[in-house]
Amino acid sequence: MPINTDQTREIELTRMKKSSTLRPTVPKLEEILYAPFKMLDHGFIRVVDYMGDDAAIVQAARVSYGSGTKKVSEDRGLINYLMRHRHSTPFEMCEIKYHVKLPIFVARQWIRHRTANVNEYSARYSVLDKEFYLPEPENLAVQSTSNRQGRGNTLNQEEAAVVLDLLKTDASRAYDGYTELLNDDGTGKPRHEEKPMLARELARMNLTLNYYTQWYWKIDLYNLMHFLGLRADAHAQMEIRVYAEKMLEIMDLWVPYAAGAFREYRLGAHTLSATQLSIVKRFISGERVTAETSGLQPREWREFASAMELKIS
Amino acid sequence: MPINTDQTREIELTRMKKSSTLRPTVPKLEEILYAPFKMLDHGFIRVVDYMGDDAAIVQAARVSYGSGTKKVSEDRGLINYLMRHRHSTPFEMCEIKYHVKLPIFVARQWIRHRTANVNEYSARYSVLDKEFYLPEPENLAVQSTSNRQGRGNTLNQEEAAVVLDLLKTDASRAYDGYTELLNDDGTGKPRHEEKPMLARELARMNLTLNYYTQWYWKIDLYNLMHFLGLRADAHAQMEIRVYAEKMLEIMDLWVPYAAGAFREYRLGAHTLSATQLSIVKRFISGERVTAETSGLQPREWREFASAMELKIS
Amino acid sequence: MPINTDQTREIELTRMKKSSTLRPTVPKLEEILYAPFKMLDHGFIRVVDYMGDDAAIVQAARVSYGSGTKKVSEDRGLINYLMRHRHSTPFEMCEIKYHVKLPIFVARQWIRHRTANVNEYSARYSVLDKEFYLPEPENLAVQSTSNRQGRGNTLNQEEAAVVLDLLKTDASRAYDGYTELLNDDGTGKPRHEEKPMLARELARMNLTLNYYTQWYWKIDLYNLMHFLGLRADAHAQMEIRVYAEKMLEIMDLWVPYAAGAFREYRLGAHTLSATQLSIVKRFISGERVTAETSGLQPREWREFASAMELKIS
Amino acid sequence: MPINTDQTREIELTRMKKSSTLRPTVPKLEEILYAPFKMLDHGFIRVVDYMGDDAAIVQAARVSYGSGTKKVSEDRGLINYLMRHRHSTPFEMCEIKYHVKLPIFVARQWIRHRTANVNEYSARYSVLDKEFYLPEPENLAVQSTSNRQGRGNTLNQEEAAVVLDLLKTDASRAYDGYTELLNDDGTGKPRHEEKPMLARELARMNLTLNYYTQWYWKIDLYNLMHFLGLRADAHAQMEIRVYAEKMLEIMDLWVPYAAGAFREYRLGAHTLSATQLSIVKRFISGERVTAETSGLQPREWREFASAMELKIS
Repeated sequence: MPINTDQTREIELTRMKKSSTLRPTVPKLEEILYAPFKMLDHGFIRVVDYMGDDAAIVQAARVSYGSGTKKVSEDRGLINYLMRHRHSTPFEMCEIKYHVKLPIFVARQWIRHRTANVNEYSARYSVLDKEFYLPEPENLAVQSTSNRQGRGNTLNQEEAAVVLDLLKTDASRAYDGYTELLNDDGTGKPRHEEKPMLARELARMNLTLNYYTQWYWKIDLYNLMHFLGLRADAHAQMEIRVYAEKMLEIMDLWVPYAAGAFREYRLGAHTLSATQLSIVKRFISGERVTAETSGLQPREWREFASAMELKIS
Repeated sequence: MPINTDQTREIELTRMKKSSTLRPTVPKLEEILYAPFKMLDHGFIRVVDYMGDDAAIVQAARVSYGSGTKKVSEDRGLINYLMRHRHSTPFEMCEIKYHVKLPIFVARQWIRHRTANVNEYSARYSVLDKEFYLPEPENLAVQSTSNRQGRGNTLNQEEAAVVLDLLKTDASRAYDGYTELLNDDGTGKPRHEEKPMLARELARMNLTLNYYTQWYWKIDLYNLMHFLGLRADAHAQMEIRVYAEKMLEIMDLWVPYAAGAFREYRLGAHTLSATQLSIVKRFISGERVTAETSGLQPREWREFASAMELKIS
Repeated sequence: MPINTDQTREIELTRMKKSSTLRPTVPKLEEILYAPFKMLDHGFIRVVDYMGDDAAIVQAARVSYGSGTKKVSEDRGLINYLMRHRHSTPFEMCEIKYHVKLPIFVARQWIRHRTANVNEYSARYSVLDKEFYLPEPENLAVQSTSNRQGRGNTLNQEEAAVVLDLLKTDASRAYDGYTELLNDDGTGKPRHEEKPMLARELARMNLTLNYYTQWYWKIDLYNLMHFLGLRADAHAQMEIRVYAEKMLEIMDLWVPYAAGAFREYRLGAHTLSATQLSIVKRFISGERVTAETSGLQPREWREFASAMELKIS
Repeated sequence: MPINTDQTREIELTRMKKSSTLRPTVPKLEEILYAPFKMLDHGFIRVVDYMGDDAAIVQAARVSYGSGTKKVSEDRGLINYLMRHRHSTPFEMCEIKYHVKLPIFVARQWIRHRTANVNEYSARYSVLDKEFYLPEPENLAVQSTSNRQGRGNTLNQEEAAVVLDLLKTDASRAYDGYTELLNDDGTGKPRHEEKPMLARELARMNLTLNYYTQWYWKIDLYNLMHFLGLRADAHAQMEIRVYAEKMLEIMDLWVPYAAGAFREYRLGAHTLSATQLSIVKRFISGERVTAETSGLQPREWREFASAMELKIS
């Protein structure tokens, strides 16, 4: 259970306090504000605040006095234009804040994106709960042979059972050690009077990397798209990709025009190198370019052929 | 007139659209949302959006599920603690967006603060209005002799009149040149058919640095305080300080606890160097430290004596 | 003359101090270190320091103990791979520092790139020289009608003469006013005893935007490429593009593999949107796609057709 | 052993390649360039590159053509002035690059400093060595009762032995599990043919947080000082503080004037709040201020009294 009863009640209370505001407001995002979406086995992501909407992008691009343009079609066209021509600053004018619960090894990838604000739950200050990530059997896979940092074939049922058993046993045992080192009865007093209560900042080192942490994470829309471009991509590790995919769905609710433009001009886009561009021109003018005549290294030709869905005979 | 009739109407229309939101809302800030505050002779600053409030700082510091603590006094105490101990990340969780109109030479100082988002009105794309900054006579002063980058005594009435006349004449003439180069009748057609309409990106170079520009500027509370610490300071140039002082007043409305802590622990604070700290300790233990016994260089001793209001006999 | 005799001598003296170092060193860049390249009429750019080389990119990507790999071909291949797959952090491991003299209106565009370090010459503190930018006649052009923020046709000789005369007269007059306001005889004493010496921070507002300023500017290679991608592009204003083009030439000397990869995978590259990608696939499979069957808006079709060099009948 | 024989040899080879350069060079830093300093039990820190020196700070502050001033005493005075008045940009003009090996839980604190460049060794791509941090017995301490995120009294010998045994056993066991999951014979082939080789990006989650990772980390001098101000402080966790202290020693070699100014005006400095400043003034004018008459909250009074070394009777 990612969220306990007390936490659920706190969230529900927060969802009952309606206010009146003059700020740009997005009803579809308000509907899910504060509500946690379950991620992996014990994680979640929830939006705790946001600033701006599609019109705010237009407004900033125009440095205007009112709110956006009159016509919806103009706003959409301008947002598409800004995205296509890689304008960044108007998209920086929208901001979103999440509360995320995630395994530590995922947090370590995530934090590499530096242009965001973050407040993490402190294990120097507080005790972590006994919650660790165990993959679903269908997500266990062998090391890829083609991609040196990815997954290959999925494990069979028996193999998966062995792996999960090992992960579970080791994580549980690590927590037993953590508990023994802390020697805390839950109220800050020792469980065993005669034993020391090791400093939290030390005891935490006994935990495994699949334990859950949590943080508040705030980012502007431009940098969010950069994050999603990398982490909602098929090459991202599955355990971070699921968070990115949910954030992309939330983006659809929040700024639907920007989200549409992002899918068209970024996520679904493909960049041709100078040589690849000339190859495409040769194809369009009727030539059947091959690996040999392409001028590309074999590996790059394969990447290109795959992206263009060339039938290589 | 910093704002024309059309713009005033646009702002008024925006102020009429009330929405319902679950987000943290600050009624005192809502009261002034979108409203322009006149700055200098033709400039203004207005808040166009914000995210978070005092409770949001507490909420992020605690990575909590609900909104802040129960007791107001606890929130205030925690914010004071965070400010005193120079925690930065919880303050980054609040964000504010302004629309600012300001002279170009002020914009050039302002933009040196890089941890903000900005969209400036483009003089490559649009024509700038004939609006330039002329100081009030009482703000005209001679070069300081003690501070190589500041102002000394104020000019007398006659001297001021001469200066203002020169500034006004040259700025007007520069705009005449700009207009002649653009040769635009206001609708994108030439005023004089037989003359060229010089590219806007070129014509703008004829304007003087006191012409007004405008931008949308968005910043988080932590970086805003850094900006205000430098620009609301007595050593800042008056023409940027007036904007900073207004932003500080707005901060009082927005996050009153953080603003109080900021005044107590930053703006009104004073940092003692290692040597100065030891001097203070000597004073406290009863010694009458002097310039000679202080161990400080003369210039630093003067700064110290002034900050401590020492009566130097 | 962008550089006076004293400055030239100072630079020559600096170029005479050879040291021994264990750091990665690039002989071709050492050859031009400190030497100013003339830009526009009174500006320059010169490299004053650098850190890292092509091997340093490889070394960081591998977190290695020695310096890069053994084989040069492997280094080049890895750098191409990193560039193609948009890895950013290894390129951040190289750094370069320039001293640049440039017109203020160019500096205002330049400074929008925030991920760099900058120290600008202070006109609050010092007096600016009488040096302003006057375009070459062949660079004077009318406002573009197709691109709302660009230039169209070049002015004819007579038209150019009129424009240059106006720019020159107004800039000279602005400097006369500046001089009169400062009332400084060049040694910090008044030229006219009976007149006030206006504070420098005020007097500077009388200058026009084509006056030259200068700064030290330091940036890492990743962010430099981002800058060059935008400013060495055909759509950039000519007055900033010339600086970017020179920096690109310098990059060829400094990190030739990275520069080659940058030209192939960024500068010369072309990004296809999701729809454009499907159009290219249709072309490759033999279909003759047209504006009507493309599914693109007219403007985007024209951009696409132009990039693909389609002969539109 | 933090470094193996091959790595030592690679470093020694690198230290043999001397080059000639025109860049600012610091002989004392060259002496230790590339050499690893042992940190904790298996970690290290070594400088792999640097840019600039004390003179480069002066040079940037003055936007000068040559290298700094003529007189050493002027350089030192200017650097002290810049530090005292919190100028940041001249210090950003120096840059340093380290190769660091450190426990993962330390890396997680370290990475919170976002204004730096980092390339971390990838456990998605490579296999981590069996190296985990075990504290020295004298560094094991109980949770502090006064400081909720720090350490209190040191454990006695017996207690320490129990803790170390637990940490060692659990970390070893975690590595056994990791090895079993990877099922890699060291050459990328399976150790046990019949078993799967789990993807590295999954297997790593079984490791405990005291395992060592390593990265290249590059930062400018201004942001380095911010890092050191927090992490070389007595309140920092010991396991990160030792790295910071070594970096401070290295700073003494690299930029001795800046390091001296940093110790005087930052590390050894003390900031008085507005109220504390007025208390100090009252003390200096002869009043014996007490907790009761101070106007401070009890906790803040204790902090103040401790910093001023008040004898509280």
